[in-house]
Amino acid sequence: MSGNTFGKIFKLHTFGESHGKAIGGIIDGCPAGLKLDAEFIQYELARRKTNQGLWTSPRNEPDELQFLSGVFEGITLGTPIAFIVENKNQNPADYEHLKNVYRPSHADYTYEQKYGIRDYRGGGRSSARETVARVVGGAIAKLLLKTQSIEILAFVSKIKNIHIDYDVNKISTEQIEKNPFRCPSHHKDQEIQDIIKLAKKTGDTIGGVITCVVKNVPAGWGEPVFDKLNAVLAHALFSINAVKGVEFGNGFGIVEKFGSEANDEMFVENNRIQFRTNYSGGIQGGISNGNDIVMHVAFKPISSVKKQQHTVSSQKENVTIQVEGRHDVMILPRAVPIVESMVALVLADMYLISRTNQL
Amino acid sequence: MSGNTFGKIFKLHTFGESHGKAIGGIIDGCPAGLKLDAEFIQYELARRKTNQGLWTSPRNEPDELQFLSGVFEGITLGTPIAFIVENKNQNPADYEHLKNVYRPSHADYTYEQKYGIRDYRGGGRSSARETVARVVGGAIAKLLLKTQSIEILAFVSKIKNIHIDYDVNKISTEQIEKNPFRCPSHHKDQEIQDIIKLAKKTGDTIGGVITCVVKNVPAGWGEPVFDKLNAVLAHALFSINAVKGVEFGNGFGIVEKFGSEANDEMFVENNRIQFRTNYSGGIQGGISNGNDIVMHVAFKPISSVKKQQHTVSSQKENVTIQVEGRHDVMILPRAVPIVESMVALVLADMYLISRTNQL
Amino acid sequence: MSGNTFGKIFKLHTFGESHGKAIGGIIDGCPAGLKLDAEFIQYELARRKTNQGLWTSPRNEPDELQFLSGVFEGITLGTPIAFIVENKNQNPADYEHLKNVYRPSHADYTYEQKYGIRDYRGGGRSSARETVARVVGGAIAKLLLKTQSIEILAFVSKIKNIHIDYDVNKISTEQIEKNPFRCPSHHKDQEIQDIIKLAKKTGDTIGGVITCVVKNVPAGWGEPVFDKLNAVLAHALFSINAVKGVEFGNGFGIVEKFGSEANDEMFVENNRIQFRTNYSGGIQGGISNGNDIVMHVAFKPISSVKKQQHTVSSQKENVTIQVEGRHDVMILPRAVPIVESMVALVLADMYLISRTNQL
Amino acid sequence: MSGNTFGKIFKLHTFGESHGKAIGGIIDGCPAGLKLDAEFIQYELARRKTNQGLWTSPRNEPDELQFLSGVFEGITLGTPIAFIVENKNQNPADYEHLKNVYRPSHADYTYEQKYGIRDYRGGGRSSARETVARVVGGAIAKLLLKTQSIEILAFVSKIKNIHIDYDVNKISTEQIEKNPFRCPSHHKDQEIQDIIKLAKKTGDTIGGVITCVVKNVPAGWGEPVFDKLNAVLAHALFSINAVKGVEFGNGFGIVEKFGSEANDEMFVENNRIQFRTNYSGGIQGGISNGNDIVMHVAFKPISSVKKQQHTVSSQKENVTIQVEGRHDVMILPRAVPIVESMVALVLADMYLISRTNQL
Repeated sequence: MSGNTFGKIFKLHTFGESHGKAIGGIIDGCPAGLKLDAEFIQYELARRKTNQGLWTSPRNEPDELQFLSGVFEGITLGTPIAFIVENKNQNPADYEHLKNVYRPSHADYTYEQKYGIRDYRGGGRSSARETVARVVGGAIAKLLLKTQSIEILAFVSKIKNIHIDYDVNKISTEQIEKNPFRCPSHHKDQEIQDIIKLAKKTGDTIGGVITCVVKNVPAGWGEPVFDKLNAVLAHALFSINAVKGVEFGNGFGIVEKFGSEANDEMFVENNRIQFRTNYSGGIQGGISNGNDIVMHVAFKPISSVKKQQHTVSSQKENVTIQVEGRHDVMILPRAVPIVESMVALVLADMYLISRTNQL
Repeated sequence: MSGNTFGKIFKLHTFGESHGKAIGGIIDGCPAGLKLDAEFIQYELARRKTNQGLWTSPRNEPDELQFLSGVFEGITLGTPIAFIVENKNQNPADYEHLKNVYRPSHADYTYEQKYGIRDYRGGGRSSARETVARVVGGAIAKLLLKTQSIEILAFVSKIKNIHIDYDVNKISTEQIEKNPFRCPSHHKDQEIQDIIKLAKKTGDTIGGVITCVVKNVPAGWGEPVFDKLNAVLAHALFSINAVKGVEFGNGFGIVEKFGSEANDEMFVENNRIQFRTNYSGGIQGGISNGNDIVMHVAFKPISSVKKQQHTVSSQKENVTIQVEGRHDVMILPRAVPIVESMVALVLADMYLISRTNQL
Repeated sequence: MSGNTFGKIFKLHTFGESHGKAIGGIIDGCPAGLKLDAEFIQYELARRKTNQGLWTSPRNEPDELQFLSGVFEGITLGTPIAFIVENKNQNPADYEHLKNVYRPSHADYTYEQKYGIRDYRGGGRSSARETVARVVGGAIAKLLLKTQSIEILAFVSKIKNIHIDYDVNKISTEQIEKNPFRCPSHHKDQEIQDIIKLAKKTGDTIGGVITCVVKNVPAGWGEPVFDKLNAVLAHALFSINAVKGVEFGNGFGIVEKFGSEANDEMFVENNRIQFRTNYSGGIQGGISNGNDIVMHVAFKPISSVKKQQHTVSSQKENVTIQVEGRHDVMILPRAVPIVESMVALVLADMYLISRTNQL
Repeated sequence: MSGNTFGKIFKLHTFGESHGKAIGGIIDGCPAGLKLDAEFIQYELARRKTNQGLWTSPRNEPDELQFLSGVFEGITLGTPIAFIVENKNQNPADYEHLKNVYRPSHADYTYEQKYGIRDYRGGGRSSARETVARVVGGAIAKLLLKTQSIEILAFVSKIKNIHIDYDVNKISTEQIEKNPFRCPSHHKDQEIQDIIKLAKKTGDTIGGVITCVVKNVPAGWGEPVFDKLNAVLAHALFSINAVKGVEFGNGFGIVEKFGSEANDEMFVENNRIQFRTNYSGGIQGGISNGNDIVMHVAFKPISSVKKQQHTVSSQKENVTIQVEGRHDVMILPRAVPIVESMVALVLADMYLISRTNQL
């Protein structure tokens, strides 16, 4: 009801405010018998972490993950898997000046309207720090999906107005992780550096697009009519802060084609049904068709800019604000594992649901 | 679980195959005491109906709505409101030739992979006829939202590559309903007619974009972190057949801006908090901010084209197919009330949930 | 939320007021590929029906069942199975005098307090007629459970203060169906007839206990900690009108034993783990242990008595009332298939959930 | 799905194995603005704790409660309230001998059948230690219900075969808390001591009945047809370990009455509708009627007896077992706050749901 749970069988419940004691969650519904590879989960958390790259802030979040339940001798018990990451390096005093002012395009005003109260320290529950729990949940979902050979690959395909080319059949995690911006190729690295430097200089921020490709999903996952695979994936992706658009396959581009140009024709080769094209992005009628699932996610520029902006106080006065503090210039590379995590959570759930579809 | 229910408090359960006995549903969780304006609901159904316009097929679906429960002397009882619309004018024999062949970019192949069985008559459960139940549910949701002065306005803002201009502050239902394509203005009517005629002549189909604007939603609706208002709206919209993209406010366009250009600055006037711009589309941090909620929905062209296409049979043979029968050239104008209905269902639910947010 | 849905994967949504157009429901989540034996379902409905026995009223409800969706050529499609039974033989005028008076121990007063409105005709939604939908849902659940060899046997084990003896290993449906009161043996038939005659003569009603035994449930069903198998069964049973108590195995009797007398010792014979006793009623730690599941359900006497009673009007006046009309002297024999249906719904759901417990 | 969540709007998610790192949970859906009285919550936990009474084991569990989120300056934020209690004083070696043997009437065998794996240390997830999280959740629910003047009073009304008399209108928490067995009066204290001493001497255990009375629930709570107030309360109560029976009002006793004797007649006095009797236990048609809600809960004797018993090993051998270790002779007094907690969780949820029943 209150929006802190994701999933139906494989569920993630999360909790935590940015400057509270801890961020954490519970994975409930993970089948018993799964080897919980703690190293992999910690690695995924590290991917999300602020590091010392060009585009990041000098903040340092040690993100030490503790599991509290649900695992016995390294194997899942089928019982809830609870985990926490304590919040450290907090300077609540940094936020005192935000107590009575609403930062533009943040959730300050809307949380206060909704609840009549708000933890103003670092955005409280609305902070992107909350995604720590998504990445832990997503990592466990990935471990489950690996037993089905499923691979989830996200990368930055556009930064501000710079498109980065890629070939969906040639991308690999190794290649993406090597790129400083988690782009699928280096051919625009210089342009990207230039735009980041410009934004830093002017105290501004930038956004972009993350593309996610999922390989080896079998045909038959997704629950029409309301829980179509694309509908639940979109729900998952739009639940990430700053996401303003989601499309599958050719997305908004497909509307300019005729139907005969937009359909994915089928053929049989070696007794296997295949598709000539993948305009649909691997989903038809809300159910996976066995092709790569392809989606694109638009992230707006970070709202915390160091430029002066007009806004209002909780006393309804007109004021100006400059959001200081340790903020990234762009969120995109750090959002890559978050996108993958949300996609993994959806697919882990759809996998378990699919076990109940036939007699 | 199985995807035939939408909503958490204000729920719509739907059922029905295209050529089964009936399409219908249950609205559960509608508060007691609502006047159920049957005429309005029937009017909404008529908006969805195939008519004799240029862009539609000569099919005729009488769509007589019967309520079975939940209403007493015209007032809702607080108990489930069940309704059915019988399926008439069926020619199952029309579909016999599709029994063993998968139409490209339809759900034929995916349903069969999922369930091991499929009702091949007119797409069965995957048919757009299923949206009848959404429109009835949406109409009841609209009646509930009207008690809160909320108005939902959808219209066709792009047909194939033709953009239709509009001013979000000047559109009205009357104006949209007068336009033969449910566009917000007439300035592209001739271009649209030409492209439709061309598609008809070549046995082809076209897609486009529907924009939806919601007025008077109070600040404070939406349930972060996973059930952000935009996340649940996107879920709702992607659950409609043929939707391939959804964006809020400036959507994919916002990624090309700097943060300082993309933020919605606030000001106070007459003791009321307002926004200088609405790039966010009325939602911040997943909660409504009191501004118009604005979203854009991409519909791919209809998959049923009369041109010959390559596909496969259920016996894994390569075959060709021409989808004959009574099909529209585009779905967009009929999809307008469907988009509105899904948006209404989300907002009715968020309204009731919001009653539980504070002490 | 609003209490008209039962189950998590295998779900029953119901609707309908006693004197509305129809009673019905949707079974959602039934796996595809199940042969839907319409004759068996109609037979189950007939078991619930008022007949001309000693203990029943002369009412006649023809209960013609129509399926609207979800079945194709006699096989379930995996899509929602909707069904209705039209309400006939209605005399709403019979109820006009109850419009402004609350019958003692009925739901008249509580519904009006809850919803601010009430359909006073025959109890509206609170009528036992609502169980028609449970029996249809339960019959489909039984068909699913039969594929797992599970057998559900309920019978009347106590009528007022008359205990009916039985041996849990010797009861059979045939034997129960042959008894005019659905008792497991004939040895108290005369006593029962006498008490019924007495009640009829004085315009009074009687209650009793129904026992339900389930055979062949494998060890491992039930979802601790909150959805223990006994907890969900109790939820199901208490949702039936007039139920005031539920116990498993030795129930309230077990509290008088020492722990060493109450435990079910285990042993191995022919390489099969077995239990010396079944005081637990087949459930330990909320999970089935492979033994017979045994439960007892207390039904209060029907509230509609023909004797004069004190009550109040909706205008807050003291009044007296005699509930006339066609009412049974006891509900027990008709409640037998309802108890079985609720148990079947729980087990069908637990069966599907159990498919997701292990890797 | 997996049974670790209770509630629909006011939800408790729990986690933790007896000898894992921590027991804990998340309260989600608690309205913003509630003063979280930490002292009261810790007091409730202390009530559940093993102490040094006659009937308890010498174990010592310090149960230090930490809140991790959802509270800001002592007030609930409307966001999830996470809490943990670390497990201390663990001797896993104590349990090594139980690794391959199934204790009779425990959940050892059933957990292993369900999940294919089991944490054998102290019962793992099936341990009564899990109820720590229920008591924390219940205490927060009580704080919410106090804003509605609702009072929940449980007490031990039967120990083995000893009935303890009480007058529902005269009981008070103070009186109950003063009694060493949480009985409502002292008149059977000597008899109780004798039976406890006997059980201790023979290495045996005893059970009993807890009665719970709820005062000041307004008419109109509960969600028919499936989520009747009694149905959800029974679900909650049967989810507690060792519960074998639940009844409301006169329960199993009411079946021996005629309808005219069992009905609760109504009258008006001082313009207020009242009931002459409360055989129904405060619930009619699944909805509260404004009267005291009264229920009785049967607890079987603790399964861990020190007498030798027959059982089997996981290698399917016949073995004998004596369950040593620090075990209570009876659970009843410690179960009193657990019963109250489960009842509070149900009522807090029904309270919030009731806010959505009318326009």
